[in-house]
Amino acid sequence: MSFPERYHPAVSAALSSIDFGALRHVYFVACGGSLSIMHPAKFMLDQHSSLPSDVFNAAEFVARAPKRLGPDTLVVLCSMTGTTKETTAAAKFAKEKGASTIGLTVEPESPLGTAVDYPVKFEAPYTTGVPIDAKDSNYSAIYQIVIGIAAATGGEDLRESLIGSLYNLQAAIDRAQETYAPLWDRYAEHFAKQDVIYTMASGASYGAAYSFAICVLMEMQWINSQAIHSNEFFHGPFEVLDETRCFVLMKGIDSTRALDERADEFLHRFGKAENILVLDAAKLDLSGIDERFQGNVVPLIFFDTLWRFIYKVADFRQQVMLDGRRYMKKLTDY
Amino acid sequence: MSFPERYHPAVSAALSSIDFGALRHVYFVACGGSLSIMHPAKFMLDQHSSLPSDVFNAAEFVARAPKRLGPDTLVVLCSMTGTTKETTAAAKFAKEKGASTIGLTVEPESPLGTAVDYPVKFEAPYTTGVPIDAKDSNYSAIYQIVIGIAAATGGEDLRESLIGSLYNLQAAIDRAQETYAPLWDRYAEHFAKQDVIYTMASGASYGAAYSFAICVLMEMQWINSQAIHSNEFFHGPFEVLDETRCFVLMKGIDSTRALDERADEFLHRFGKAENILVLDAAKLDLSGIDERFQGNVVPLIFFDTLWRFIYKVADFRQQVMLDGRRYMKKLTDY
Repeated sequence: MSFPERYHPAVSAALSSIDFGALRHVYFVACGGSLSIMHPAKFMLDQHSSLPSDVFNAAEFVARAPKRLGPDTLVVLCSMTGTTKETTAAAKFAKEKGASTIGLTVEPESPLGTAVDYPVKFEAPYTTGVPIDAKDSNYSAIYQIVIGIAAATGGEDLRESLIGSLYNLQAAIDRAQETYAPLWDRYAEHFAKQDVIYTMASGASYGAAYSFAICVLMEMQWINSQAIHSNEFFHGPFEVLDETRCFVLMKGIDSTRALDERADEFLHRFGKAENILVLDAAKLDLSGIDERFQGNVVPLIFFDTLWRFIYKVADFRQQVMLDGRRYMKKLTDY
Repeated sequence: MSFPERYHPAVSAALSSIDFGALRHVYFVACGGSLSIMHPAKFMLDQHSSLPSDVFNAAEFVARAPKRLGPDTLVVLCSMTGTTKETTAAAKFAKEKGASTIGLTVEPESPLGTAVDYPVKFEAPYTTGVPIDAKDSNYSAIYQIVIGIAAATGGEDLRESLIGSLYNLQAAIDRAQETYAPLWDRYAEHFAKQDVIYTMASGASYGAAYSFAICVLMEMQWINSQAIHSNEFFHGPFEVLDETRCFVLMKGIDSTRALDERADEFLHRFGKAENILVLDAAKLDLSGIDERFQGNVVPLIFFDTLWRFIYKVADFRQQVMLDGRRYMKKLTDY
């Protein structure tokens, strides 16, 4: 299989080396924020291929040791710095079992990058402070992997369309910053006073809700949170909703949108509008992005734009963002 | 394949009718508390069979519409009352796609029970107020299904051992009530004062942590919560830990125990002992239960025993348990 010219060269090389005729399973394995991109990856694969897959925290993956893991499986891992020890251990474990391994990282010379069969480099503004183009992001790399797998396993070949869409994504994100900017001013000061803020999403966007809850609200602002699935909300969590409770609802435009719409209606019926920050993807200008991928790129737009919001929240809280940690990158012995 | 005499007759009948030679996938589908038992079901299947499986919220399952769903797949659903509309819709959707369907419910004449190919009745103290024997519970039924599938798809045939273990489970739960009772007295009054209580677990017990967080703490006591995976804890959530934050850690004895041990150590290093309720399964007397299933039955023991704890907490909060809802079973139009 030859790959479109603009495809990530390391993704093309990795996928060209895999025997898809024998491939039976894909494991998406990572921790924390890197795990959060594996949920939308599986969502995309589920809709474009009949190949089965799992998403696992890296330590859970190794300790669970799924019986299905073996030479006919592919394990896709991710760690931004490439130094997450559980993820590197998972890569080594997978290789011992004979699986093929792809590792996404900003540093191919890192422990993860050197442990896997195929390192795939991406870029992250988070590490350098320099803005990146979304086509070079972790989402872009994992989606190129997924659509490549789908094309190679009997799904429609959408690689040209995907790569064209990814090249137009940064412009859509820049436009989204303008679309959502008024929300930040309206909600930042009020949200800064909260001890608890829930996030909510479904489908392709659930991973972004998870990441915003655990890596941003909890990790960097010490605000209590949970990423509630938009339908699970109605089976227990909604009982915490009252006129004071705050939510960030990520209303996507993939095939699960109706779940978010139902949650939105309920939130506004029993909560107060000033406590409910809704990012509605239907309000975005996504021109240049194939309609078949618009729902998939939305979580990256949500997550990228919400950075602007949380910096405003942090200013009101007088808690500096990345320095606002007690344990991560400060302790080494845990 | 003939089934052990004490196996659930409806499980034996269902599994006897399925063409396992053609079976390619199992979907575990439900909402809320019923979804929480699907996580340990998948954990057991992953370790005993190479058949792939997924766990999905019922509305997510239908909206996602995985391409793999078809005549060669089995969909196992659960709704206690059998009236959960998303789960019944998922059963109908699965049948339209040609899948076989098994539905666990206390009421086989319910919408879910009548929508599926094979209804499987279980008992729940929750609906009748009458104590049940754990061998008749939802966990027992789903584990009999899983080990039956494993035996029929190339895994070891552990059905006799499983059913013997399940018949000895209630006695183990009764003993566990004694083991853990001193904890309830020590923690109930203090935990009753909290606005936020996190639960934590991994492996077979993650579903019990999820259920206790969303169906008990949030739904019945309006206490903010999240079920944190014991390793994901270290990738963001741990930053909310300080000398005031409360946790319920379910320390299992399955193959992921080391993850819980690491979390336990960290919680006690930076938190205060009075805020950290640890249920350690290693302290239980599990005689009569095959060692290969001890880790799997532990979440049911955790969940059952924690009911005693939450009733004590509710007394201090003066919030009656099942009447403590604003929306569920009170509204009908959402």
